[in-house]
Amino acid sequence: MNNRRVGIIGMGLIGGSLALALKQSGYGGEIIGCDPDASAALLTGRFVDRLSDSPAAVAGECDLVVLATPVGAAVSLLAEIAPSCCAETIITDVGSVKQAFVRAARAAFPPKPDADMVALVPGHPIAGGEKNGAAAARADLFQGCKTVLTPLENTSAGALDAVTRLWERVGAEVTRMDAAAHDELFAVTSHLPHMLAYALVGGLLASRHCEQVIEYAAGGLRDFTRIAESDPVMWRDICLANRNQLLAAIAGFETEFGRLHDAVDRGDAAALAGFFKRAGDYRRRLNTAD
Amino acid sequence: MNNRRVGIIGMGLIGGSLALALKQSGYGGEIIGCDPDASAALLTGRFVDRLSDSPAAVAGECDLVVLATPVGAAVSLLAEIAPSCCAETIITDVGSVKQAFVRAARAAFPPKPDADMVALVPGHPIAGGEKNGAAAARADLFQGCKTVLTPLENTSAGALDAVTRLWERVGAEVTRMDAAAHDELFAVTSHLPHMLAYALVGGLLASRHCEQVIEYAAGGLRDFTRIAESDPVMWRDICLANRNQLLAAIAGFETEFGRLHDAVDRGDAAALAGFFKRAGDYRRRLNTAD
Repeated sequence: MNNRRVGIIGMGLIGGSLALALKQSGYGGEIIGCDPDASAALLTGRFVDRLSDSPAAVAGECDLVVLATPVGAAVSLLAEIAPSCCAETIITDVGSVKQAFVRAARAAFPPKPDADMVALVPGHPIAGGEKNGAAAARADLFQGCKTVLTPLENTSAGALDAVTRLWERVGAEVTRMDAAAHDELFAVTSHLPHMLAYALVGGLLASRHCEQVIEYAAGGLRDFTRIAESDPVMWRDICLANRNQLLAAIAGFETEFGRLHDAVDRGDAAALAGFFKRAGDYRRRLNTAD
Repeated sequence: MNNRRVGIIGMGLIGGSLALALKQSGYGGEIIGCDPDASAALLTGRFVDRLSDSPAAVAGECDLVVLATPVGAAVSLLAEIAPSCCAETIITDVGSVKQAFVRAARAAFPPKPDADMVALVPGHPIAGGEKNGAAAARADLFQGCKTVLTPLENTSAGALDAVTRLWERVGAEVTRMDAAAHDELFAVTSHLPHMLAYALVGGLLASRHCEQVIEYAAGGLRDFTRIAESDPVMWRDICLANRNQLLAAIAGFETEFGRLHDAVDRGDAAALAGFFKRAGDYRRRLNTAD
């Protein structure tokens, strides 16, 4: 992972920030970018050494390929690039859902007769935000953030090591997790909160208070709904790809919210204060996790 | 409102910040604080000129009384201070629910036989946050924030003017609203989001991911749930005092969330992308409101 040629397909916030961070780290290998929507003027030189129009061509000439698109596009790209890849081409991604990617990767890269191992390393940097696109890219986006890798049972040690070092080079802390455990955990910590923010904002928009809300929106509402500015296509894909885990997370929330709804309905002072106290105590623990 | 003696009952974040801001503005009148939990050493001199143990005594010697407690305590205090007040004593509050305060104020301060007007000015500074108590007080807390006043139909112009100037002195922008309209608006923009944050955090706490969530909590989740650290007693009181409006807001949210839940369940790509796009576009408008 010192001089490998890296191809980054998808030059949005994540792909762009990864390219920028690699460049600024003095990475020795060539970095090739690929994005139909990318501005060549913005990216070439500062972000990448070269831009290509063809994901398959990039995969064919790179040692390590990062699929940095929404989950749906990454799944399609696997089939598109597979014929160009050799057995040693390391493939990783940055998607927020891992089981769907793993399934598609297994299908696109079946084990070769002469090799037990594959060079597939599904990954998920826990970074990003409501600002999208290469214009929002930052070289320090991954500094101190976690990147979860969910290797297959036959992912080669060499490929896993190369992707680990790629993320460590840009400042991320790499951890490993089972893909199913990942999808279940992120359904509750990330996908569900986005659904709540989108639904709250959707409800405000649909209400007759729609204009007045804008005038009186306080800091709390703004913090709470910021994530509803995230990329709609990325979130559509997450909902589709992590449907079952997300439905389970939604059901869990609805049970808890129903309990609170009932306490409000009953005017149950003790239940309300207890609920808020317990939640607040737990919430404070999230601040000390870094 | 230049040399009036001001009594602030409840020296938490709001009362403490108001005292601090008045002091730092060079306010000419005496400022008396009252809070059973207050640290005299912290408050006297820097926040207030004097501390008193008795809300009734403070009301009896002040020209303007600010009830800066959670809604439930403010409602109780009205009856407690009423016998000490004269017809000219201006009473205001800072609670997040206005109709319940208005009802209690009408009962505690019935119109006098010789006067049509009362000096009651219900108010709500749109400031605060998850940090509570006088220790979190800041002289600039109200700078540029809105304060909503919901005068009664027989609130005297003099009292309304005095409370308006009090808030303007500490940097707030004062607006007026009908108490019922206030409670409906803040049920959707503030009370409902707090319920969602509390229920999300409560659900995480109840889940088997409880400890892992802390390890993997990203910025989005932290921003989204910060408001769940707010004061449990304050929020208990808001739920009790604004029950009907909050139940309506909850019902509105449940409809919208149900729509999103269904789209996830159906795997409806177009409905999901459209929902997220519309919500995101509206959310971006909240950023430009200042």
